[in-house]
Amino acid sequence: MSNLVVYGGAGALGRSVVTFFKEKGWTVTSIDLVENVSADHNAIVNPNATLQDQAKEVQDNLASFLGAKKLKAILCVAGGWAGGNAASKDFLANSELMWKQSVYSSFIAAQVAARHLESDGLLTLTGALAANGPTPGMIGYGVAKAAVHHLVKDLASPGSGLPPNAKVTAVCPVTLDTPMNRSGMPKADFSSWTPTETVAKQLYAYATGTAALTSGSLLEVVTKNGETTFKEI
Amino acid sequence: MSNLVVYGGAGALGRSVVTFFKEKGWTVTSIDLVENVSADHNAIVNPNATLQDQAKEVQDNLASFLGAKKLKAILCVAGGWAGGNAASKDFLANSELMWKQSVYSSFIAAQVAARHLESDGLLTLTGALAANGPTPGMIGYGVAKAAVHHLVKDLASPGSGLPPNAKVTAVCPVTLDTPMNRSGMPKADFSSWTPTETVAKQLYAYATGTAALTSGSLLEVVTKNGETTFKEI
Repeated sequence: MSNLVVYGGAGALGRSVVTFFKEKGWTVTSIDLVENVSADHNAIVNPNATLQDQAKEVQDNLASFLGAKKLKAILCVAGGWAGGNAASKDFLANSELMWKQSVYSSFIAAQVAARHLESDGLLTLTGALAANGPTPGMIGYGVAKAAVHHLVKDLASPGSGLPPNAKVTAVCPVTLDTPMNRSGMPKADFSSWTPTETVAKQLYAYATGTAALTSGSLLEVVTKNGETTFKEI
Repeated sequence: MSNLVVYGGAGALGRSVVTFFKEKGWTVTSIDLVENVSADHNAIVNPNATLQDQAKEVQDNLASFLGAKKLKAILCVAGGWAGGNAASKDFLANSELMWKQSVYSSFIAAQVAARHLESDGLLTLTGALAANGPTPGMIGYGVAKAAVHHLVKDLASPGSGLPPNAKVTAVCPVTLDTPMNRSGMPKADFSSWTPTETVAKQLYAYATGTAALTSGSLLEVVTKNGETTFKEI
């Protein structure tokens, strides 16, 4: 029985991932602010706790669920979005929020990988295509995602503390087709949005080795006329 | 009389910068954890405060020093170094420390620039050459500096909230010749280290327009046999 951790397992993408892997017979732990009843185990984090306290909560819970068992994959799909430039009144609040949502979760996922990932396991984080260029209208978001992209390069390099044959990547969608995005952008062209189930299916292909993956690459996810492609960049 | 803010004005590089600009007749405000008596004004930040509380302290102090006057330059030379990979016991503590030292200070400097920089003023941050590639043995440091590099690209782009003709860059030294680095690496080749006075002099040349600078570029600082070059990358 393969073991999986989904960081952000109660969000829109996280729920699709938990459900997909559960249907394939995996044992799934969800880490999130709230429980996902479809998961076998849940570790609940307090977003107001410090990075180290959040990590301790996660690690203590995981240790009790896993015992000596290793994880075949850790999929960190936690994140969020907030805009604003340096003159915005919410600039610093949003920058800190983006950091916590994207980078805290990625750091803790990396620490979980260092302790519990199988020797040839998979760690995926969540980046953003936009952060490969300037993001002046959403500075906190772009800075946090650029940090995640750098973290992928670090973790995929020798000496990162991860098992030497583990693979690390970041999925970089443009827009996911989620209820929240539909309510926020009701007039958008949904045929260019990526269904969460499509991402879940592709993550399963990477986790099981049926889709090739170069460790350290970022994955550009583009959906056009309802067709989605995943390309290493 | 030109006005300058040095963020990190009580550190080794910061002291050189404050002294150099004071000798040229500028009015200098130092922002740091401790006072620099050579500066005209000092704003003291509490490193244990939240990002927003640190920013409020800085902005309130600056508003009282400046009144309606604008800043010709904001030079953020705050930062620090800590190593560790994802398996290190200090991984998360050091990652958070690096974030606070390099990115909090850069975000606050950006907010100061949005409010107080002259229309053609200069904002410099401090990056690291190493963070342009993977940094698996010093993950928290590399991630924070990669975040600063992205912030430079953001702030130099239209719509960032900075004055449209302002210039933004990050100085990316390899190793600065400071007392702390000498005591930490006593057997290193000091002729490949960059003197802080050399950086101060170059920052003055950018601030006064006597050295050309492309906004949004990173500045590779390389010292070889005691000779230092600054190259846009």
